[in-house]
Amino acid sequence: MDRQELNIRLPQLVDKIVESARTQPGMTHLDRVLLPHRDSIIEMVTKLRELVFPGYFGKQGLTAENVQFRLGELTVEIADILYEQIRRCLRYRKRIPDGAMDDECRECDHAAAELTHAFLTRIPAVRELLAADVQSAYDSDPAAKGTDETIFCYPGLLAIFVQRLAHELYTMNVPLFPRIMTEYAHSLTGIDIHPGAALGKSFFIDHGTGVVIGETCNIGNNVKIYQGVTLGALAPDRFVEEFRSRKRHPTIEDDVIIYAGATILGGDTVIGKGALIGGNVFITNSVPAFNRVTADPPKLKYRERRQRNSGASEFSGDYQI
Amino acid sequence: MDRQELNIRLPQLVDKIVESARTQPGMTHLDRVLLPHRDSIIEMVTKLRELVFPGYFGKQGLTAENVQFRLGELTVEIADILYEQIRRCLRYRKRIPDGAMDDECRECDHAAAELTHAFLTRIPAVRELLAADVQSAYDSDPAAKGTDETIFCYPGLLAIFVQRLAHELYTMNVPLFPRIMTEYAHSLTGIDIHPGAALGKSFFIDHGTGVVIGETCNIGNNVKIYQGVTLGALAPDRFVEEFRSRKRHPTIEDDVIIYAGATILGGDTVIGKGALIGGNVFITNSVPAFNRVTADPPKLKYRERRQRNSGASEFSGDYQI
Amino acid sequence: MDRQELNIRLPQLVDKIVESARTQPGMTHLDRVLLPHRDSIIEMVTKLRELVFPGYFGKQGLTAENVQFRLGELTVEIADILYEQIRRCLRYRKRIPDGAMDDECRECDHAAAELTHAFLTRIPAVRELLAADVQSAYDSDPAAKGTDETIFCYPGLLAIFVQRLAHELYTMNVPLFPRIMTEYAHSLTGIDIHPGAALGKSFFIDHGTGVVIGETCNIGNNVKIYQGVTLGALAPDRFVEEFRSRKRHPTIEDDVIIYAGATILGGDTVIGKGALIGGNVFITNSVPAFNRVTADPPKLKYRERRQRNSGASEFSGDYQI
Repeated sequence: MDRQELNIRLPQLVDKIVESARTQPGMTHLDRVLLPHRDSIIEMVTKLRELVFPGYFGKQGLTAENVQFRLGELTVEIADILYEQIRRCLRYRKRIPDGAMDDECRECDHAAAELTHAFLTRIPAVRELLAADVQSAYDSDPAAKGTDETIFCYPGLLAIFVQRLAHELYTMNVPLFPRIMTEYAHSLTGIDIHPGAALGKSFFIDHGTGVVIGETCNIGNNVKIYQGVTLGALAPDRFVEEFRSRKRHPTIEDDVIIYAGATILGGDTVIGKGALIGGNVFITNSVPAFNRVTADPPKLKYRERRQRNSGASEFSGDYQI
Repeated sequence: MDRQELNIRLPQLVDKIVESARTQPGMTHLDRVLLPHRDSIIEMVTKLRELVFPGYFGKQGLTAENVQFRLGELTVEIADILYEQIRRCLRYRKRIPDGAMDDECRECDHAAAELTHAFLTRIPAVRELLAADVQSAYDSDPAAKGTDETIFCYPGLLAIFVQRLAHELYTMNVPLFPRIMTEYAHSLTGIDIHPGAALGKSFFIDHGTGVVIGETCNIGNNVKIYQGVTLGALAPDRFVEEFRSRKRHPTIEDDVIIYAGATILGGDTVIGKGALIGGNVFITNSVPAFNRVTADPPKLKYRERRQRNSGASEFSGDYQI
Repeated sequence: MDRQELNIRLPQLVDKIVESARTQPGMTHLDRVLLPHRDSIIEMVTKLRELVFPGYFGKQGLTAENVQFRLGELTVEIADILYEQIRRCLRYRKRIPDGAMDDECRECDHAAAELTHAFLTRIPAVRELLAADVQSAYDSDPAAKGTDETIFCYPGLLAIFVQRLAHELYTMNVPLFPRIMTEYAHSLTGIDIHPGAALGKSFFIDHGTGVVIGETCNIGNNVKIYQGVTLGALAPDRFVEEFRSRKRHPTIEDDVIIYAGATILGGDTVIGKGALIGGNVFITNSVPAFNRVTADPPKLKYRERRQRNSGASEFSGDYQI
């Protein structure tokens, strides 16, 4: 087959693909009900990052005089995207087509304006929380050279920034939108915080790759978490629909530290105030306040290892490549 | 040194760098044999995502009437990239320069057209597999609000989507191309599935960061895997070239569940149908069907922790920052 | 509230946000001291990748004749960004506003030119190190089909490439810049190597997601590391400022292999030449040369698992979703 022949056969291939698009309706979104637009939501996150940390990201050279113009411009741009994407999410939930304009639609669009307003009203409070997170990152990490470095570089702070804002939309009950935001942060950082999780003040995540924080987690103030920590759910006996709405993830009280690779599971599990959870600890029960829980590290075996050229095998079954 | 002086010295620096490019031939690709173009392959993956999930990504507002035009347009664009990049990969393997046009080259180019056609023919079948993956993600995750959310947001589904398509090119024996695709997905999701791995129907990966699935893995139907799971190879006695072509990674039969952080190693290891592998289990032997294997979690030590202001040290050697 | 009303209320919202920007000075960068520009630094990394691996990334079709022109062009572009961004970083450290031009500023700008020159002078030596890394990746991974594949696809190589160059700027004591580089690589690969870490020759990281290598690590030649390995610090008794400048991370001598998920902590911990550290080993003490250290894998429990339809519960407390 040469290039020309391939071209001649393309229409046939297209027919098969179109047919497949029609017979797999769950994989094709064809009605006039608009879905939210992932790229617009990501663009909005980028603009929000500049709005929340002016002078660090996006436009540089801001001064005390011109900052209000830049923030004004950004707010208008963010409001545009927010309104349009929230509106789509609300119409999507009610399966209202894009062009429609009866009372129910108008209700949806008014709700979108309300929620956009409510979200923007929350920005100063969220900034205050984030200022405490920035300080906590600097205070907690001996490798940090200053708070500017944590704002610029720390993936934990990026993930927390996105989640705190997504959580606002989650509590306003906007579908799809908040999860698109947090999965974008997950992709950039390897940190997977569900928008439903409630995070306290001065939250710090170091390194962060592999962290998973579930939907119904409750996290207190001054909590520190390291890479590979899971705050997850226990597998139910059988999957039941009702499980979706239950508290499935743990509660972490104030001043808790959870070191790398620890796994804490279950909706009734409470890690009490001031507790310290050691690396790789696996826990499915509550821990009393001010306790430290450490795992006996696995017993180690030492052996000489110079037989490389002898007949003895290095192959031991516990290594991996 | 000021800026002018730096500029004056640049040509000298360039000479050294050019010399280094010439004396390190393994790091410089200078002949006329074209390599595949990574950015084009990534662009193609983006277009394939729209082709496979029309209306979700890329162009919005598709209807039953216009969908065929959009899918037709996309198919032509994808065919263009596929043909050009497969052609490059085949010529690359035979070290044929770009301009050349003898019989061997023509053979290469015809093979590229054949493979492009064969790949596009497979799209409907791959869509069918992905439809089952989408359903499985919704059914398996209590945090999922609907199948649309899994298509939009779930990194596991993105990694599986890319791997299923890359696997088609891998089985057609196209070099470089499929691995560029899966490493792109790895970068976005933290999920590293080699294009060689054979995945069964209704495959689900939750959270996913840190998952590694090796080249010669065989995975059955209805398998569920959680974050941090490794399906890897055992380290050989000594590295031998022949090891490259051996089955090095495990076989996972139907209906198996593997919880977070488990490690399963070895080409002869078979996890039997319906088995359940607990979190952090480390396994290098086969598991019989319908068994559950759990690891005794490490014994925990509890201690009070209020000595912060006393002389006693918190320093215990098992924490990490 | 409709769209019009929302627009009318935006100025009020902007006022609140501007006020918040003024009252949280740590989150707003408003003086005329320019910060480095993250996007420019990332653009420079992309250009450096082409400079170091010509023909693989960026412009294709390079020949022995035209390569010098392309490398010359790239060097000039990289020098421009380097000079401007290093200059900003140095002025940032001394809090010198952008326009200023007294003696101290001139000193800063001259230092920026010196450091740009010094950095570019190091490119050939860094390329030599990277050539050995490329070879090591191919030699160590049975799934690798050739060195070209490792250059194109291997996330470990990407992370090492960025870190080796960032480390040059770190040793020149440029603030912020090197960490922005390595966190960019972290975001792409899930591999977090601090720019301060000293890496030996022929370094190999496989898969890599979740790897953390701390600021004061010392790594010898021919070291191999697998996914999820942490080379970290022990938590101090109490956080003291002085801790920031101490050696906090381990030393890994030549020819050491560290398998997936192992954790090695502490600034006094030395893993001796030729040692082999098994998967999931947790170590806070030194290991003598040519020893292999393996962890007793956790004891496994096997149970039948067919009670799905009986009354017996599968719920066991050690699974996670």
